[in-house]
Amino acid sequence: MLNNVDLSMTIDKDDYEKQFEIYADKLGYLQRKLRDLEIPVIILFEGWHGSLRGTLVNRLLSALDPRGFRVHSAAKSTCNYKDKPYFAPFWSELPPKGAFSIYNGSWYYRKLENEVSDQSEKNKEKEDRIYYEDINTFERQLTDDGYLIVKLFMHISHQKQKKNWEKLEKIYGKEWHKITSDEEEPRAYDEYYSVYEKMFDATDKNNAAWHVLPAEDLRYAELEIFEVLFAEIESYLSRKEQAAKKLYVHSAPDVPNILNSVNLSVKVDKENYKEELKKYQKRLRTLQFDLYKHRIPAVVVFEGWDASGKGGAIQRLTSFLDPLGYQVIPVGVPNVVEKQYHYLWRFWQHLPKNGEITIFDRSWYGRVLVERVEGFATANEWQRAYREINETEEQWARHGILLAKFWLQIDKDIQYERFQERENNPDKEWKITDEDWRNREKWDKYEIAVNEMLYRTSTDYAPWTVVEANSKYYARLKVLATVVDLFERALKNN
Amino acid sequence: MLNNVDLSMTIDKDDYEKQFEIYADKLGYLQRKLRDLEIPVIILFEGWHGSLRGTLVNRLLSALDPRGFRVHSAAKSTCNYKDKPYFAPFWSELPPKGAFSIYNGSWYYRKLENEVSDQSEKNKEKEDRIYYEDINTFERQLTDDGYLIVKLFMHISHQKQKKNWEKLEKIYGKEWHKITSDEEEPRAYDEYYSVYEKMFDATDKNNAAWHVLPAEDLRYAELEIFEVLFAEIESYLSRKEQAAKKLYVHSAPDVPNILNSVNLSVKVDKENYKEELKKYQKRLRTLQFDLYKHRIPAVVVFEGWDASGKGGAIQRLTSFLDPLGYQVIPVGVPNVVEKQYHYLWRFWQHLPKNGEITIFDRSWYGRVLVERVEGFATANEWQRAYREINETEEQWARHGILLAKFWLQIDKDIQYERFQERENNPDKEWKITDEDWRNREKWDKYEIAVNEMLYRTSTDYAPWTVVEANSKYYARLKVLATVVDLFERALKNN
Repeated sequence: MLNNVDLSMTIDKDDYEKQFEIYADKLGYLQRKLRDLEIPVIILFEGWHGSLRGTLVNRLLSALDPRGFRVHSAAKSTCNYKDKPYFAPFWSELPPKGAFSIYNGSWYYRKLENEVSDQSEKNKEKEDRIYYEDINTFERQLTDDGYLIVKLFMHISHQKQKKNWEKLEKIYGKEWHKITSDEEEPRAYDEYYSVYEKMFDATDKNNAAWHVLPAEDLRYAELEIFEVLFAEIESYLSRKEQAAKKLYVHSAPDVPNILNSVNLSVKVDKENYKEELKKYQKRLRTLQFDLYKHRIPAVVVFEGWDASGKGGAIQRLTSFLDPLGYQVIPVGVPNVVEKQYHYLWRFWQHLPKNGEITIFDRSWYGRVLVERVEGFATANEWQRAYREINETEEQWARHGILLAKFWLQIDKDIQYERFQERENNPDKEWKITDEDWRNREKWDKYEIAVNEMLYRTSTDYAPWTVVEANSKYYARLKVLATVVDLFERALKNN
Repeated sequence: MLNNVDLSMTIDKDDYEKQFEIYADKLGYLQRKLRDLEIPVIILFEGWHGSLRGTLVNRLLSALDPRGFRVHSAAKSTCNYKDKPYFAPFWSELPPKGAFSIYNGSWYYRKLENEVSDQSEKNKEKEDRIYYEDINTFERQLTDDGYLIVKLFMHISHQKQKKNWEKLEKIYGKEWHKITSDEEEPRAYDEYYSVYEKMFDATDKNNAAWHVLPAEDLRYAELEIFEVLFAEIESYLSRKEQAAKKLYVHSAPDVPNILNSVNLSVKVDKENYKEELKKYQKRLRTLQFDLYKHRIPAVVVFEGWDASGKGGAIQRLTSFLDPLGYQVIPVGVPNVVEKQYHYLWRFWQHLPKNGEITIFDRSWYGRVLVERVEGFATANEWQRAYREINETEEQWARHGILLAKFWLQIDKDIQYERFQERENNPDKEWKITDEDWRNREKWDKYEIAVNEMLYRTSTDYAPWTVVEANSKYYARLKVLATVVDLFERALKNN
């Protein structure tokens, strides 16, 4: 894409200033419109080192209402997240609905560093191996959810790059290179050239296209940036209208009834339970420490019917663990802030650091369970979610996160018994609400959703364990045994 | 306090289990009550290394609804905030209204490390110098705002400590010491003993008292923890009732009319403005880089009348800066999440890291301006705020943050002109709302509040600069000149 760009383009200063004012007003207007329509926008500034992107970003910012944007940079973000999967900082920094996130160096940054042979060595051990496929997946997940992504690349010649370099040295002094660590590039213009071309090849997609701009004349580039933004925003708005008209037809897949084949009669007596429980808990205590030593993170997910015993199982799982090394995240209806983001956003926030454990009491699977059944998600949204969830868990697993997912299965009679028990016990009464009774009435619909979830999202890297939970004792032991086994296998392979 | 504790206390296992169930139910009930009353609770677990606090914390957690608490530890928190003032992590981790934050090692942790001579050397350079007075200030700010703080100290003998040590080694292996870095303490029991006594002396306050518990028998200690919590919660609830009955009488201080003496006729012509502006902006560009090199952080606060030109001044201040090194934080009405916390909470979140700049477009001074005038804060709250703000800015300054605070002063006529101009310009119309007109009607009330603010919160470490802003050109140059001067002086003294 680079050699199609005419680098000789320039503009006269007075023309520029006049045009800038007009464009700034127009962008201000569009920013307010996007805010009203609650559309989140991500603008990436990539390009040659020394292309003076910072100056271009700043001029653009001066046209925006500061209440509506944040500026980020991968170089800064990733250092706070080096214990987490590659995309964790970018998920964290997503713009809320109606706002802009502007990246001066984005998720392409680290990937590009690794592509250039000299640099790759020093980062290799610490970094997740990341592929352009992963970037495409990330961008698709966002654009599918309504994010507008505009990707800008500032192109300059080798000669111009060297000139800018000298200018920057004059302003900031020689130390500047050391701090910005950009010293390699001018010596390797050709190498970077082919790396950039490869990047365009791999990631110039319909939903998130690249725009290569001639940036030798900054004024010219600035106006081009505005024009690209206008075109992208307008095309987004017209696409959105078309999408609204499209009718979505869901073809139900042939899902086996997994829940039906669960044998709920299994149980364990109290004495055995107590003995086994202690054994597993003690084992887990040392396993937690071993995971910590080896910096292996783990995620444990609990899903299941109301009153299936999730809370009790979580308590037994954690009661011998060091509280500094695990956290339990109870997941309910998203709050007003969480609603401003992609549905996966809040779960990325709670990923464990390397060596730690996060336990989710309900999870992102709400998308294909309660949100599906209650109609909080559109058919398109929950249908899409199976793939999104698998992709996400695969990324986590590749980073080294151990994943255990439990579905606690009970039958309708046991649920009724437990609901009654709660209502009749003043200390447990608060645990039961009208909503629980309402959910119960939709048992059959939930059963369909659970079967499809188990069928579609049980993977090698993140398999579901269906737990027979009519007997609480049996269920708790099965949960602990499964987690112990997962941790032991991981440590053996480490 | 330590030698008043009878370490021989024990309890029988069966009695314990029976009592634990009763206490757990009671705590569960109180947790729900506190949630309904929107009271945030902070529980600190401090004590001897090897007192098995983790086990005690875990047992307590098992009695709590996991949706209502988070566990923290200073050892973990501070490592994510080492570029920020001492209390930044603890502000971040405050519980929202109605929730619990539980600390296994709290803000006392780092202070204690520094008190013990061996340890202090290695941390000294990197750490803020922190005094017990600062801790008392922090705790008072929270309890004044309605937080309940319960401070627990687990006491064991030297002999028991050594025994626990051996036990932990047996479970986790010898490496455990290296990871937890607790190896020093058993060798220095006596030294720690006097350090702890000094801590109790300095920080055992009415609003946040210490409870030293005998922790040789963990079961006994656990039940004591419950009892202390019950007593603290009940005493809090009865205090709260009394406070509600108390009538607050505000004695207005003798505040000089600072605004009246501002000469608003000063101005500068366009040509000089353009020239000077460029000069300052270029100077700021290199100063930003120098601050970055020397890791000096800065905070710039803009307050002023509606239409006094804050936005324009901020834009001129930032337009030559590297966008990666500064951020502009526009401050409006707190959102629903922010309302769950102390009013200073959201500003601590946005403090710059060392070497960076945060610009606040409006700020924490809202407490003594709009919240005072509109009655969003009680008299007690905004009166208290002057001291709280001074304390907070002093802490920031001591950490090395440079502080510039601007009040942009205009007269009523100029404001009227600018409001009219906005209403008549379709591109600026969005900037003017009914609220702006309503605020204008309260000009006199605001004037009183502004004068008191300037008078009470202009300090050596964080002085106010009143900017004559009838002339936008003059105002912008004065802002830039003041910031340039502040940065230059700081670099000279560095």
